[in-house]
Amino acid sequence: MKKPLILVTNDDGITAPGIRALIEVMKTIGDVVVVAPDSPQSGMGHAITINSTLHIHKINIDDDIQREYSCSGTPADCVKIAVNEILGRRPDLCVSGINHGSNSSINVIYSGTMSAAIEAGIEGIPAIGFSNLNHSWKANFEVSKKYVKSIAENVLKHGLEKGIVLNVNIPNLDEEDIKGVKICRQAKANWKEEFDKRQTPQGKDYYWLSGIFENYDTGEDTDEWALENGYVSVVPVQFDLTAHQCIKKLNTWDFNE
Amino acid sequence: MKKPLILVTNDDGITAPGIRALIEVMKTIGDVVVVAPDSPQSGMGHAITINSTLHIHKINIDDDIQREYSCSGTPADCVKIAVNEILGRRPDLCVSGINHGSNSSINVIYSGTMSAAIEAGIEGIPAIGFSNLNHSWKANFEVSKKYVKSIAENVLKHGLEKGIVLNVNIPNLDEEDIKGVKICRQAKANWKEEFDKRQTPQGKDYYWLSGIFENYDTGEDTDEWALENGYVSVVPVQFDLTAHQCIKKLNTWDFNE
Repeated sequence: MKKPLILVTNDDGITAPGIRALIEVMKTIGDVVVVAPDSPQSGMGHAITINSTLHIHKINIDDDIQREYSCSGTPADCVKIAVNEILGRRPDLCVSGINHGSNSSINVIYSGTMSAAIEAGIEGIPAIGFSNLNHSWKANFEVSKKYVKSIAENVLKHGLEKGIVLNVNIPNLDEEDIKGVKICRQAKANWKEEFDKRQTPQGKDYYWLSGIFENYDTGEDTDEWALENGYVSVVPVQFDLTAHQCIKKLNTWDFNE
Repeated sequence: MKKPLILVTNDDGITAPGIRALIEVMKTIGDVVVVAPDSPQSGMGHAITINSTLHIHKINIDDDIQREYSCSGTPADCVKIAVNEILGRRPDLCVSGINHGSNSSINVIYSGTMSAAIEAGIEGIPAIGFSNLNHSWKANFEVSKKYVKSIAENVLKHGLEKGIVLNVNIPNLDEEDIKGVKICRQAKANWKEEFDKRQTPQGKDYYWLSGIFENYDTGEDTDEWALENGYVSVVPVQFDLTAHQCIKKLNTWDFNE
């Protein structure tokens, strides 16, 4: 049987330990091509590079069978250029990650990891974003690998509906403490911003964005609940953002007053 | 009656003609504070600045009553810093635009204009992104103003459901050729990428991202249909990306094989 062609990318950059773990797993199930940012791209959301040039370099980080390219662009750029200029065809699967840190709940909106998966989805490629709740560069991805493999194999076996990608988050727990995989909805939550105001040596104000994550969703079917209770969360994510349920009500508004 | 407090932002930068037109309209219905990027941010998606500092400057572009600040960050940063550091409270309305160019259909994902509106929505502020289909810097926004005003006034009057913002696109037509406002869903469409491959003076390859927009949705309830047929399109947009309809099917998958 022909091996599936798997595109691997991320947003922490091509040298991050998380993408190395993801490559290792993918090599056990398919032919792997890596196209990932040459520098960290966290918080890039679904940015694309339209006012600047893009550069790709063939590189060789570990001496193994996968083909690897670093790209000067965003995660979404990586997927676009991989499909159009490097692979020459749609891969059978695109995986992004493993992110160092959570992309659960509202973080899906800000996530470079998920933007790569969503871009692949837009191009009709089955796609998964993987994140580990440990944001340390020294995070242990060994426990994650089993779940990454199982979820990727399921996607290859069953396919994904058109317009859907998966957002997978893995708790930072020992293997025996993970209870399994739970299909979830995105919890309603947001960041309460706190700007850290400082002064330049010249006395001008500047700011660092920081904040506290606030989950105000008490449902037990959310990704936040799953992760807090020891499950790997899987949220099916769509990029049709239409709030169909609101159309009827908006049609009662009068725009000719 | 107390005037509503209106936050105005965009992604083309604080000096763009589109935001000037938007400010003019908003001054007729409320107290206006402008916090917008100091340089163009098109294609930034929902990027936020977490690995760099943010700077804001009080400026005075036209000699009028609104307060204006330029910000070194992305459109989403502008909304965050406006609410937390400048306004000191949630505004009654946040409007973003008027963008020079379309943000219909899948463009909502890549749009800096819409990311500002979505960020405001996440923070619980009624919000609207406005775009004009003419991407020229010399676009005529006079025709747009009537619709911008009517839609903004409707949002102030009726409010928006929690979790919903509006994506408004205005066709590049003379006033008498616009048929009115149409509530729509996001058309299923994507960009067929075309990378323009060039060489540096030193002989290295580099790329410019470009592409052709492909609408493969034949529905007459979409934003693309509305715009092609002379309507102003209004799409209710949500940031809960969960594909709820897929959860049941995913629950039949076996992750313990």
